[in-house]
Amino acid sequence: MKNLRNIAILLLALLLSTQLFANEKVYKLKMATTWGPTLSPLIDTSRNMAKLAEEMSNGRLQIRVDAANKHKAPFGVFDMVKAGQYDIGHSASYYWKGKDINLLPFTSMPFGLTAPEQYAWFYYGGGLELMQKAYSKYGMYSFPGGNTGVQMGGWFRKEIKSLDDLKGLKMRIPGFAGEVMAKLGVEVTNIAPAELFMALERNSIDALEWVGPSMDIKMGFHKVAPFYYTGWHEPASEMQFMVNIHSFNKLPKDLQKILVVAMRVAAYDMYIQDYDLNATAWQEMKKEYPNIQVKTLPKDVMDALKKANKELRVDLSAKNPLLKEILDSQDAYMKKVREWSKMSDYLYLKDNL
Amino acid sequence: MKNLRNIAILLLALLLSTQLFANEKVYKLKMATTWGPTLSPLIDTSRNMAKLAEEMSNGRLQIRVDAANKHKAPFGVFDMVKAGQYDIGHSASYYWKGKDINLLPFTSMPFGLTAPEQYAWFYYGGGLELMQKAYSKYGMYSFPGGNTGVQMGGWFRKEIKSLDDLKGLKMRIPGFAGEVMAKLGVEVTNIAPAELFMALERNSIDALEWVGPSMDIKMGFHKVAPFYYTGWHEPASEMQFMVNIHSFNKLPKDLQKILVVAMRVAAYDMYIQDYDLNATAWQEMKKEYPNIQVKTLPKDVMDALKKANKELRVDLSAKNPLLKEILDSQDAYMKKVREWSKMSDYLYLKDNL
Repeated sequence: MKNLRNIAILLLALLLSTQLFANEKVYKLKMATTWGPTLSPLIDTSRNMAKLAEEMSNGRLQIRVDAANKHKAPFGVFDMVKAGQYDIGHSASYYWKGKDINLLPFTSMPFGLTAPEQYAWFYYGGGLELMQKAYSKYGMYSFPGGNTGVQMGGWFRKEIKSLDDLKGLKMRIPGFAGEVMAKLGVEVTNIAPAELFMALERNSIDALEWVGPSMDIKMGFHKVAPFYYTGWHEPASEMQFMVNIHSFNKLPKDLQKILVVAMRVAAYDMYIQDYDLNATAWQEMKKEYPNIQVKTLPKDVMDALKKANKELRVDLSAKNPLLKEILDSQDAYMKKVREWSKMSDYLYLKDNL
Repeated sequence: MKNLRNIAILLLALLLSTQLFANEKVYKLKMATTWGPTLSPLIDTSRNMAKLAEEMSNGRLQIRVDAANKHKAPFGVFDMVKAGQYDIGHSASYYWKGKDINLLPFTSMPFGLTAPEQYAWFYYGGGLELMQKAYSKYGMYSFPGGNTGVQMGGWFRKEIKSLDDLKGLKMRIPGFAGEVMAKLGVEVTNIAPAELFMALERNSIDALEWVGPSMDIKMGFHKVAPFYYTGWHEPASEMQFMVNIHSFNKLPKDLQKILVVAMRVAAYDMYIQDYDLNATAWQEMKKEYPNIQVKTLPKDVMDALKKANKELRVDLSAKNPLLKEILDSQDAYMKKVREWSKMSDYLYLKDNL
C-alpha cells in the first residue's frame, strides 16, 4: 500500500512538472534582417518586434535578431527563411521581384496607395490574403513590417523644369521606379550606398533617390544637391516580416498569436516613429541648409511618368495573372479609398498648412 | 528515511503545482464602454482588445466587455473605473472636460493634429507622458484607444456661403467645437441622438455634426441634408482606454505587457478599420444619393472659426497651467510635423486625386 502511494505521488509530481515545463518551454527563433545594425528606423522595428514578443511571452518566445553584418547576406534573407536557416526575416517584399514578380506590389507601387490606405487594403480590403497567396508556394507567411510613409522623389543638383531636363540625366533610382524613369530618357545608374555621396558631390550623377529626411540626413545629400523633390514612386513603402511556416507551426497557439500581434504593432509603430523622425530630420536639415528647396516635378513630367508607369504595369500584368489580380485589387481599392482621403486628410490639410 | 523521502516528494509536488497555478492563474477584468452593443467601429475596438489579450495570454487574462446597455451609464465610465467598479474603460477623454478641463486635448482639438501626427505626438513627442500626468490624480492610466480619422464638419440643409449664413443657424454640435461655433453666432442646440434625424428632417435644426461616413450612414442624415461639409473641429478623434492603477498593478508583468500591447494595436486597428469603413460608406451614400455635395466652409468662415478657437484656448489656458502645457506641446509638435505632412501626404495626394 505504501509503495502504491509513493508511486502515485511520484506520478503526480511528474505529471505536474511535465505540464509546467510544457507551459514554460522556451522557443528560440532566429531572425535575419536586411538592415545593418545602425540602420534606424528599420533595424529598430526588427528589435522592437523581438522585444515585445519576449516581454509578452514572459521569456517563452525569444527571437535573436541578426543584422546584416552578422549573416553577411542582406538580400539572402528570403532564401534563408525559405530554407529554414532562419525562422523569420525582416526585409522588403519588392527586393524579391527578380525571383517572383508577384512579390513586387506588397511594398509600394508608383502613384499607388498611401500608408493608411495601404494598411486598410492589407487588413480590410483583401491585401493580406493576396500576400499570403503569393508567398504560400515558398513555405512562408508574409506580414506588413513597418512603413516609411511617402518617400521623397530624391535630391537633384539642378531644377527639373520640363520633360527635356530628364533626357540624359544621370540618376540613381533602383527597382521598378528606375524602369519608369528610364522610359523617360533618364540614364539610370546603380551605385553602392557608400559611394553615393561622393558620386553626387563630384557630378558623376546628377540626382539620386534614397528614402526621406529621417534616413537621408545621415547620407548628407542635402549638402551638395539643393533641390529636394516630393515623392511619386513609393508613396508608402511597407517593410515585411517573413515567417517560415514550419517554424510558425511548431509554436503553441498563444505564442503564434503573440508573434503575429508583435509584428503588427511593430509595423504600425515604425510608420509613426518614422513620421516623427522625418519631421525632426527635416527641421534640422532646413535649419542648417536654408537654401534647400522642396519641389514637385512639373505637370508634363508627372504625366509622362504616370503614362510610362501604366505601360510597364500593363506589360507585366499581361504575362502574370497573379500580378494582375494583385494590381487590380489595389486599383479597385484606391478608386474607393482615395475619395475618402481627399475629403478627409487632403481637404483638411489644404486649409491648415 | 522512507518517510523523509515521502515528505520530500510531496513538497516537490506541492512546489511544482504552486508554480504551475501561479503561471496558470486566470485574471478576470471588467471593462465598461461608453458605446452601445452595435456602435461599430467603437464597440468593435473594445471587443478586439479583449479578444487579443485573451488569445495572447492563453486565457489567463479575460476581459469582460460591458456595452452601455449593460451598465446603463455611458458617461459614468470615468467614475466607475476611478472607483474600481470596473478595471478598464473604453471611452473618449473629451467627455471628461466638465470634470477636468485638462482631459480635453487628448481626443482632438479644432484645427489640431491629424491621426498620424497625433500618434507621433503621443508616442514620440511626449503626448503619452502628458496624458498620464493629467490622469495620475484619478488613480488611472490612460492610453490611446482608436482613431476616427478626420471627422466631417456635418450635414447642412443649406449651403454656407459666408459668415452671415451662420448667424442664427440652429446646429447640433456639442463640446468645445460647439463653443467655437457659438462665438460666430450659431445657435448651438443639444438633441438626443435618437431624435436627431427627425429634428433635421422637420427643420427644427438646420445642421448637425455627427462623425464621418462610417457612422453617419446609419443615421440617414444624407437623405434630408444635401451639403456635407469637410472637417475642421475634430481632425483626429482618439478614443481612450482607462485602466484603474490598482487593477493594473495586480497583474503579473507579462499580462501587463499583453494588456498594453493589445490596447495599442486595437487602437491603430480602429484607425485603419474606420478608414476602410468611411471609404465604403461614402461610396454607398453617393451611389444612393448622387446629389450630396461635399463642401468646404468658405475662407471667411474658416478664418473666423480659427480666431474664435484661438481666443477660447487662450482664455482656458490662462486659468489652467497644465492645459497650457499640453496645448503648447501639441502646438510645438504641430509646427514641426505639419511641414512634413505637407511635403509628404499633402503634396502627394494633390497630384493624385
